Amino acid sequence: MLREIERDELEPLATGAWILGAGGGGSPYLSYLNARNLYAEGRRVTLMDPRDLDDDDLVAVVSNMGAPLVGQERLSDPAFSAKPVRMMEDYLGRKFRAVMSVEIGGGNAFQPILVAAVTGLPVVDADAMGRAFPEAQMTSFAIADLPMFPLTLADIRDNEVIVARAASWKWMERISRKACTEVGSIAATCKAPRTGREVKDHGILDTTTKAIRIGGVVREARRRHEDPVAALLEAEGGVQLFRGKVHDLQRRATEGFLRGKARIEGLDQDRGALFELEFQNEFAAGWRDGEVVATTPDIICVMDSVSGEAIGTESIRYGQRVSVVALPAPELLLTPKGLEHVGPRAFGYDFDYRTAFGKVAA
Amino acid sequence: MLREIERDELEPLATGAWILGAGGGGSPYLSYLNARNLYAEGRRVTLMDPRDLDDDDLVAVVSNMGAPLVGQERLSDPAFSAKPVRMMEDYLGRKFRAVMSVEIGGGNAFQPILVAAVTGLPVVDADAMGRAFPEAQMTSFAIADLPMFPLTLADIRDNEVIVARAASWKWMERISRKACTEVGSIAATCKAPRTGREVKDHGILDTTTKAIRIGGVVREARRRHEDPVAALLEAEGGVQLFRGKVHDLQRRATEGFLRGKARIEGLDQDRGALFELEFQNEFAAGWRDGEVVATTPDIICVMDSVSGEAIGTESIRYGQRVSVVALPAPELLLTPKGLEHVGPRAFGYDFDYRTAFGKVAA
Repeated sequence: MLREIERDELEPLATGAWILGAGGGGSPYLSYLNARNLYAEGRRVTLMDPRDLDDDDLVAVVSNMGAPLVGQERLSDPAFSAKPVRMMEDYLGRKFRAVMSVEIGGGNAFQPILVAAVTGLPVVDADAMGRAFPEAQMTSFAIADLPMFPLTLADIRDNEVIVARAASWKWMERISRKACTEVGSIAATCKAPRTGREVKDHGILDTTTKAIRIGGVVREARRRHEDPVAALLEAEGGVQLFRGKVHDLQRRATEGFLRGKARIEGLDQDRGALFELEFQNEFAAGWRDGEVVATTPDIICVMDSVSGEAIGTESIRYGQRVSVVALPAPELLLTPKGLEHVGPRAFGYDFDYRTAFGKVAA
Repeated sequence: MLREIERDELEPLATGAWILGAGGGGSPYLSYLNARNLYAEGRRVTLMDPRDLDDDDLVAVVSNMGAPLVGQERLSDPAFSAKPVRMMEDYLGRKFRAVMSVEIGGGNAFQPILVAAVTGLPVVDADAMGRAFPEAQMTSFAIADLPMFPLTLADIRDNEVIVARAASWKWMERISRKACTEVGSIAATCKAPRTGREVKDHGILDTTTKAIRIGGVVREARRRHEDPVAALLEAEGGVQLFRGKVHDLQRRATEGFLRGKARIEGLDQDRGALFELEFQNEFAAGWRDGEVVATTPDIICVMDSVSGEAIGTESIRYGQRVSVVALPAPELLLTPKGLEHVGPRAFGYDFDYRTAFGKVAA
């Protein structure tokens, strides 16, 4: 099924994608403005059910790669987003049937929409993370051991790089990351192309729709002057982990990551308690009074307690009144192979996945 | 004209290429052993006069890129050297007519020979530096403002990178250098392909023959128990700048370069004088008693005073009895545009080209 993404779905998509970013992936705001602008010019983007892909269709998997903070300073334009897709078509000598995002969380929710608006390709309603993660080997396609090359990368000057082969997903991450860093820590990329069969079998499906739905729930509650956090938790089966005030923050940019720790003092029912959150671009683990209560890949999200707007790891600051919530991770990330790629140990922790949902890994 | 490179020319080529390296480019010794081994297996390499190239022939410009010290630790094999040439043919959908080195100085004199031994292509008797230099924009092709892309790069694992476009020669250098560094500071590369016309117009011609000739002169003098340094200077129109003993050395690896300074105390006719040499991979400038007497692009070479063997910037050490000599730079490097790319200011000095040959830039 193909349907047009409505103009008034763009804002909910931005709100929902930012929540699914788990603090990372970069704010979707500027990409949303880009998309709104394209709609104002009369362009329209269609959303395609991944189940409608033919097995041998070729799908472009796109992302805006780099440091989210740089993305806030250097505005992307849609033609730039589409460049690596055209490079890949030239390199393969084949045309793409559709385009999808590598990650629905954060600004990359809009990357395929920008590409679609200038190329006319439909956007597949799927991604490869179901949230945001910082590295190439943290995708459902990597978990499924699919080929990781070729990758195309372009910057805003006239630099174009093709990683034609890579020895592993981690090598692909290392090499493409260095190229990205060298051209200014922001680059448009087209990841290894996927067949329709691969997307259907190993993609995380219906996530554009999910982000729009989540954003809609939050915005509707806000409109009704109801509690948007409570509305989200009810609609998506989430759990509130903590409510309080940010009272301490350590944040440092190291090795291309935004790493740090937030301490939150309890308010309301959590008064007297302390919540600690560690992040590596995304929120990776949370401790309540010293005990781990939530870890990646569950979607740990810090929301403004009043507006329900997500707060990113680059913008969380002293004094904010926040609700820390967890949304369930896609099942695919909770398999043993999935946890190997995106569980706490993949981020350097010496403990296993722990969840607030009362279930453990399959 | 095509002629076979004789087995007994390989050793003179190594000696001559090391002298033309001006202290850089990495010792040719290991590549020479590789070539000798291939000859022992019965492989032969032909040398092609660049004037015999058709204008639209396509020539592969190869180099072993990276830190010379790493090249001493991780032995290259010929199949690895040929990999980026095959990648380039696949990428372009065209076959190469011949192969040439980006730089005749140091180990890269042998890179096209290794490629030729496994591919059967002839080696063009030319290069793009007439010596060794550290960076991509320091070639005669860059001086001529020829296109700098595409470039292919391969490592010994299974990583393959294509820099499909670059905004400038410096951007090409930056991006390919980062890729090279990431895969372990050593990579086989195939630079932007050149047409026969471009090689004839903008290459530095007959430099393989020159290196073999220089090595032959030094080795012949050594065999006759004559002074090999004097023999070289006479045969090639060189100038002796100083003779003495290395008495102080500063060397540091920074930003991918081997930078440093050597102080040499005079012996024989130079007794009582002091010579200082600064290097950035290659010897870049020399001071006699505080006065600049030689600069890049003249080929400043430090030779063992007895054997006439060149001494590299990574192997020069306290106590060595050395002769510092200058050999004339290729004319092409001495034009105003040439000096802009490879003169002292291109290495960060605030003085102009000075030469020991009693002439100034055209």
